[in-house]
Parts: sequence; structure tokens; C-alpha cells
Amino acid sequence: MKLFNKVAIIGVGLIGGSIGLAIKKRKLANEVIGVFRRPSTMRKALKARAVSRGTLDIKEGVKDADLIIIATPVGLIPEMALRAAKFARKGAIITDTGSTKAWIAARIEKKSGRKPRPHFVGSHPMAGSEQAGVESARADLLKGSPCIVTRTSKTDRGALKKVSRLWGALGAKVRIMSPKLHDRSVSLVSHLPHIVAFGLAGAVPAKELRYAAEGFRDTTRVASSDPGLWADIFLTNRREIKDACCLFEDYYRRIRIAIESEDRKGILAALRQAKTKRDGFIGKRK
Amino acid sequence: MKLFNKVAIIGVGLIGGSIGLAIKKRKLANEVIGVFRRPSTMRKALKARAVSRGTLDIKEGVKDADLIIIATPVGLIPEMALRAAKFARKGAIITDTGSTKAWIAARIEKKSGRKPRPHFVGSHPMAGSEQAGVESARADLLKGSPCIVTRTSKTDRGALKKVSRLWGALGAKVRIMSPKLHDRSVSLVSHLPHIVAFGLAGAVPAKELRYAAEGFRDTTRVASSDPGLWADIFLTNRREIKDACCLFEDYYRRIRIAIESEDRKGILAALRQAKTKRDGFIGKRK
Repeated sequence: MKLFNKVAIIGVGLIGGSIGLAIKKRKLANEVIGVFRRPSTMRKALKARAVSRGTLDIKEGVKDADLIIIATPVGLIPEMALRAAKFARKGAIITDTGSTKAWIAARIEKKSGRKPRPHFVGSHPMAGSEQAGVESARADLLKGSPCIVTRTSKTDRGALKKVSRLWGALGAKVRIMSPKLHDRSVSLVSHLPHIVAFGLAGAVPAKELRYAAEGFRDTTRVASSDPGLWADIFLTNRREIKDACCLFEDYYRRIRIAIESEDRKGILAALRQAKTKRDGFIGKRK
Repeated sequence: MKLFNKVAIIGVGLIGGSIGLAIKKRKLANEVIGVFRRPSTMRKALKARAVSRGTLDIKEGVKDADLIIIATPVGLIPEMALRAAKFARKGAIITDTGSTKAWIAARIEKKSGRKPRPHFVGSHPMAGSEQAGVESARADLLKGSPCIVTRTSKTDRGALKKVSRLWGALGAKVRIMSPKLHDRSVSLVSHLPHIVAFGLAGAVPAKELRYAAEGFRDTTRVASSDPGLWADIFLTNRREIKDACCLFEDYYRRIRIAIESEDRKGILAALRQAKTKRDGFIGKRK
């Protein structure tokens, strides 16, 4: 079922490429055009068949598009959205795939005035991996993952519906909420685990790693993620991350103090509570 | 190739059961006898064929054994080793599979005097998972994993060699070091990741977990481990864990402060250093 005539994807990496592959595979649009900064990336994306056509000219890429998806690193999303909006046709919809939402929405909605000609709807398909680049893209990346679509006082209801239908058609479990609530949730379930994993991988002296096994491997997996990408995510969600860090530090300290004071009951209570929560999370996913 | 006539395993769970299966499969002993506290566990172990024979009587279990492996939770190891030593024949070797070594060695070597009749050699096969119980045991659990064997001033060289040969024959990569060096290494690559993972799983409010994905799942995997087991590991390696926690807190705080002060360069430097270390660790394992 066609949802759009022409979809433009700006930034065709792991996420943008996977979306392109999935839209093409499910024939949700007549054309998927990729907008690139570098010819080398364009060649890779065309080779991976992630887009039907590529261009280095944003104007050419977005001019007739019904839907423009900004899938660049978070720090570039507002700028790219505002540039795309200049060339987009009236009634076009712009969405994004950024991991923080309030920072992006504030910048786009402020700059584009009360009634932006193209409609903006924030999205966050919660999929990905520590691998980057269109080479790792796959059509089923979003399947079964949550995808949060954000609504503000300025969001057009029709555009919100169309964007939600797209993610649903790609197999994601769509939830609609405010940018603020989104940012709080991801600060806890995604940004905090990344900070902790980077902290752990950074702390252990390299010479000790020869004895590291599965526990270390999994606990630090996301510390192999792209530093530039994550620096921007952290910077654009500072306030929520601060609160999330405080929650973590409280619980971590509770365990640490119980160990130091040889309080076996205290350790047990803290570990049991953590295990129950984690087992519950895994149980629900099955 | 037979290394032993009779091996006794005290505590036949995931680790003890996997060792039993592997010794039997590779025909490294004529008999593997399991020593149990509960009839129900004995039935499970016999059903899983983890041991050739089971007994609830430690005296009967260990009396003719050449090798006695204590694979109980860490907190029970010294007590079980000293009880086994009472009934063991002269020249028998006792080893264990505990995750901390100095605490165990100090208790066994102190109590058993200068020349213990059976020889004690500490071991730590660094394998396992967040699952527990003989039902999860498998003959290849130790294959490819590091196994640290500890040497103190009281260690018998012949016994050290025999124990090392056993782990080598089960496919583990054997390293010999002092209990102190062992405890420092595992405090960093194993105990610290567990504390951090328990801290993370405990900190995130349950209602936020519906948006958690692979990042949270992997970073907290080891928080599904057995709380009692880990409480004892933490308690018996307190001093080294304290130092490991300080290293982690320093690096974590470096990232956190860089985020709060909007120091993109500082964040990038910290994340890059962590990623380089983690990528190097993964690269060496391949």
C-alpha cells in the first residue's frame, strides 16, 4: 500500500538506510531519494540499494517530496530540517529519527514560525546498534522496536497520523507522547546505560582486559558506539540526563556502601530488587 | 587420557555440572561422583548425566578421590574444603571454582596448618552466565575461557601442575598467578561490571522499561545473576572492589561533568578513549 509518492531521506546511514530499504521492500512509496553530503556515501547507499536514487543537492532531493526524513546525527537535525523546509512543497511533512526530541522540536518550531509551510513531526525509532553506516542497514531493523512520535501544541494532526502510519507499516510499535516525556524515558533506558558503559570501558586498565569475559563484553557493548553521535545526544538532553544520573548514583552507592559495611542483608535486598526489575523486563519481551 | 581415577565434585550447579559433563565426555577420570546437600538437586544432576554417581554423604563422596572440586557458592568454599580435607586420602588434591581467591586461600591454608594432608590449589574457571543450576550446565562451558590457577607460598608444585592440566584438558586458557593479582583483575573485569549493572537495573523506574531496548538489555544482563552468590563474591573481595569502584567513579564523573559543562571536546575525548579500549578487547577475542 502506497503511503507516499516521493520520500526523501537526508542522511543515509544505519537508520536512514534501514528505513529506505524497508520503505522500498514494502512498496510504501513510488520513489525513495537519498540526500548526501559525500559522493562516497552516496555510492555505498546505492550499492546497498537503500535508496532508489541519490543526490548531493538538498533542493533537488526534497522539492517534490511528500515526506522528508532527517536521519543525520542529532546535532545536525534542526539545521537540516530548516534547510529542507525552505525547498519543500507546501503540505510536505518533515520528520526525523533523532534520539532527543525537545531540543530538536524547540529549534525547528521556533525558527519556522507559527504555521510552517511543511509540517514537522518528531520521531524516534528506537532501534540501532553500536555499528554505524549504511553497510549495516537492514530492512527489518525497526521491526518490533518501539518508535516514539512526538506531539506538541504546534503539531498538525494529519501529519502526525501519516508519520505514525509509516512507522507502523515498518513494523515498529508506535507510541505518541510529548518531547519532554520522551526525553525523560530515553535518558533512563538509553542515555544513562551508554554513559555507564562508556564509564566502565574507560575505567578498566587495558592490561586487565585479557581476563575479561562475557560479563564485561555485554555490559560495555554500547561503549563501542560512535563517540560523536553520542556526544551530541548527551549534550542535547543534558537536563534529563542529570536526573537519570542521580537515580543511578543513588542505587549504585547503596550497593557500594552495603559492601563496604559488610551488610549482607543490605546487599541482598538491593541486588534482588534490581534482578526482579531486570527479569520482569526480559519476561515481557519474550 | 585419564588424569585421575576418581573425581569428587561438591556443589553440582552450572559450573560444577559443566565440569562433570566435560570430564566424563573427555574420559579424564574413571569416575565422577557428585556430593549434594539436597536429594532433589542430586536427582537433577543425575538426570543431566553431569556425574556418574551421587551421594549426600561428603565422607563417602571424597574418601577415595584423587581430586576434589569445590564448586559451591563462594561463601561456603572454605568450610566445604576443610570438611572434605578431613575425609580425603593423603596426597589428594582439593581445588575450587570460586570467583575470589585470597579470601578462600587464607581461610583454608590457615586452618589446615603448614603441611595439609590433601593439597589445596585455588582455581577460577572464568565462565558462567546469569543462569544458574545444573539444568544449564554444558560440557563446553569452559572451552576458550580463561581459567586462573593460584599459587601461594604453600602451594604444592605437583598439585598445581595436575590442576592446571585438568583445566587445560577442558579447553580453558590457563594462567597462574597469586590470589592477590587474581582478585584485583576480577574486581575490575567482572565484579565491577556486576555492581554497575545491578546499580543500573535497580535505578531505572519499572514503568520506563517499556521503552528499553537492546542497549539496556545488554548493559544490565548480568543483573539477572543470583543475588546470594554475588553478595558473597562482593563481600569476599571488598578491598579490591573498593579500588575498582574508585576507578569507575572517576571515569564516569569525567563524562558526567563534561556533559554538564557542555564541554563537547571533553566528552568526545572520554568516549573515544573508552571506545578504543572496548574495540581493542573485542578485536583480540576474534
